[in-house]
Amino acid sequence: MRIALDAMGGDHAPGPVVLGAIQAVQKDAAMHVVLVGDQAQIEPLLASAGNVRDRLEIFHASQVVTMEESAALAFRKKPDNSITRSWQLMQQRKVEAIVSAGNTGAVVAGGFLLRLFLKGVRRPGIAALMPTQQGLSVLLDVGANVHPKPEHLYQYGVMGAIYAKHILQRDKPKIGLLNVGSEEDKGNELAKETADLFRSSPLKDQFIGNIEGRDINKGVCDVIVTDGFVGNVVLKVCEGVFDFVMRVVGKELLGALKTELPLAQQAMGGIIKRYDYHELGGAPLLGVDGICIICHGSSKERAIENALHVAAKHARAKLNELIVKELTAGGAATPEA
Amino acid sequence: MRIALDAMGGDHAPGPVVLGAIQAVQKDAAMHVVLVGDQAQIEPLLASAGNVRDRLEIFHASQVVTMEESAALAFRKKPDNSITRSWQLMQQRKVEAIVSAGNTGAVVAGGFLLRLFLKGVRRPGIAALMPTQQGLSVLLDVGANVHPKPEHLYQYGVMGAIYAKHILQRDKPKIGLLNVGSEEDKGNELAKETADLFRSSPLKDQFIGNIEGRDINKGVCDVIVTDGFVGNVVLKVCEGVFDFVMRVVGKELLGALKTELPLAQQAMGGIIKRYDYHELGGAPLLGVDGICIICHGSSKERAIENALHVAAKHARAKLNELIVKELTAGGAATPEA
Repeated sequence: MRIALDAMGGDHAPGPVVLGAIQAVQKDAAMHVVLVGDQAQIEPLLASAGNVRDRLEIFHASQVVTMEESAALAFRKKPDNSITRSWQLMQQRKVEAIVSAGNTGAVVAGGFLLRLFLKGVRRPGIAALMPTQQGLSVLLDVGANVHPKPEHLYQYGVMGAIYAKHILQRDKPKIGLLNVGSEEDKGNELAKETADLFRSSPLKDQFIGNIEGRDINKGVCDVIVTDGFVGNVVLKVCEGVFDFVMRVVGKELLGALKTELPLAQQAMGGIIKRYDYHELGGAPLLGVDGICIICHGSSKERAIENALHVAAKHARAKLNELIVKELTAGGAATPEA
Repeated sequence: MRIALDAMGGDHAPGPVVLGAIQAVQKDAAMHVVLVGDQAQIEPLLASAGNVRDRLEIFHASQVVTMEESAALAFRKKPDNSITRSWQLMQQRKVEAIVSAGNTGAVVAGGFLLRLFLKGVRRPGIAALMPTQQGLSVLLDVGANVHPKPEHLYQYGVMGAIYAKHILQRDKPKIGLLNVGSEEDKGNELAKETADLFRSSPLKDQFIGNIEGRDINKGVCDVIVTDGFVGNVVLKVCEGVFDFVMRVVGKELLGALKTELPLAQQAMGGIIKRYDYHELGGAPLLGVDGICIICHGSSKERAIENALHVAAKHARAKLNELIVKELTAGGAATPEA
């Protein structure tokens, strides 16, 4: 299992990113990580790698796309950037997966520019895990595609259901369409046309119809389909509300305690560790020919390590073969609009 | 101050709705509420009104639009419904404001059908208050307009800024556009064109540019502009995450305590009372010629009472005169796209 890791990607790169790679290969004896980035910065960080050093390789890339840069401009000005080099390694089949905490727009654009799409897939989408009262659900797209067509959203439902079945172990995943109301006639044209596609598709028995924003965390379905604009906003709103509420709880609830404060702090630490959106292990860009795991820009070693394990898990589950089978003849091929 | 209250609107109507009206007129000696709905059901509920009974009037409407009905169909089949009758009372200037916890789509459609718009306003929008680390911000539109044009969003910025200034007492309100990233080139066409409008408008100094979902609760701006689809989803996601997190805190954090549990429960009760989205006092539909306050469908007496006070406050602040002045010559008239 060879994985390319964008060693320069994210707010804290390269230190904690390289550390995450060391921790990941220590735990997974079959993992080999190619650290893509500035050799002069990465080399010294590998001093602590010890007996896993031989499974950590450096692929030198001299340039870095910053978190704020426009992908199109950055790729033109910086052809030797760590994101493009990572994608190229995957295109050349030198790695099975890539992981990056860098500029999300640029990571997505890197794959789109190479048209490294799976057969039958019209547009890849980013799938994010959402904590719910019933365990995890998968929300997609959260930002790869801000101008989707109904057929794209339908394919997100197909890929999300495969993900929910094989990664989240849901027997017959339920699919919901994020909308402004649960009634059939609700929403904008995109939502209405997408709902029609699902209702006339092989997935119609798994499609529960429209769901509202407040249903996500209730866990009413395993797969939540939406466009990349809405999904991205929703993911970040969840993060913002979680941070806000935990801050208020920390101040007002913990602030009211004395003798049992340590107990409360321990419980709160557990909640934050479990649900903190910064700590989740990266979101897969589903539909690319290969595996691409996108991490939060604020990722530190734990998040990077998690993301590398997620990439390995995806590769072992052979999700891509299942997606191609479903999206081409015989499976849940997209109905004609 | 005469306000029409849709006595049949919401999940709990008419009991708690009528009770909310009684409580509101008890606290505001200048308030007169016209209860619109089924006289036979409302009359007995007024038995407890005592000495405020003379400021509670019934306007009989024999029909009710249910929470799930399509507005267009409902209005055709049920011309004597409480929502349409409330709007007609406002059109005839028999009331200054209307309040409803009924089917939001139908409440909005009632005003749109009568074209009861303020001069210069192209499309009214619903403004919701969002709790943030810096106090309240206003998010609009949260569901009146799911197919907006950039000019509509620009006008939401104008109206939201007037609201923030005169209701939230912000001296020079900051306006942000909800987007998938803070960089200028981010987002879909609607977001890009809207940002351009703001940047070339008289509001350019108050416009802080794009904000992301996670910035809302940080309170980075006073007014958050977005389209009705995204805004509606965001509002309900906030509600869902808040409920979810408070449930987890209740179980795991409070569950870890013994002797100080009552203290923690009291603090938690305070947080829920302050931030619970069910308890907020209704969202104004800004841009209509009159005042329309839309309540959460789950509103009980406290929420209805709050909404009636909000309606009175809006009327006293004369927001509409300020909006007309801003949106017509001399103010922040919409720049040409």
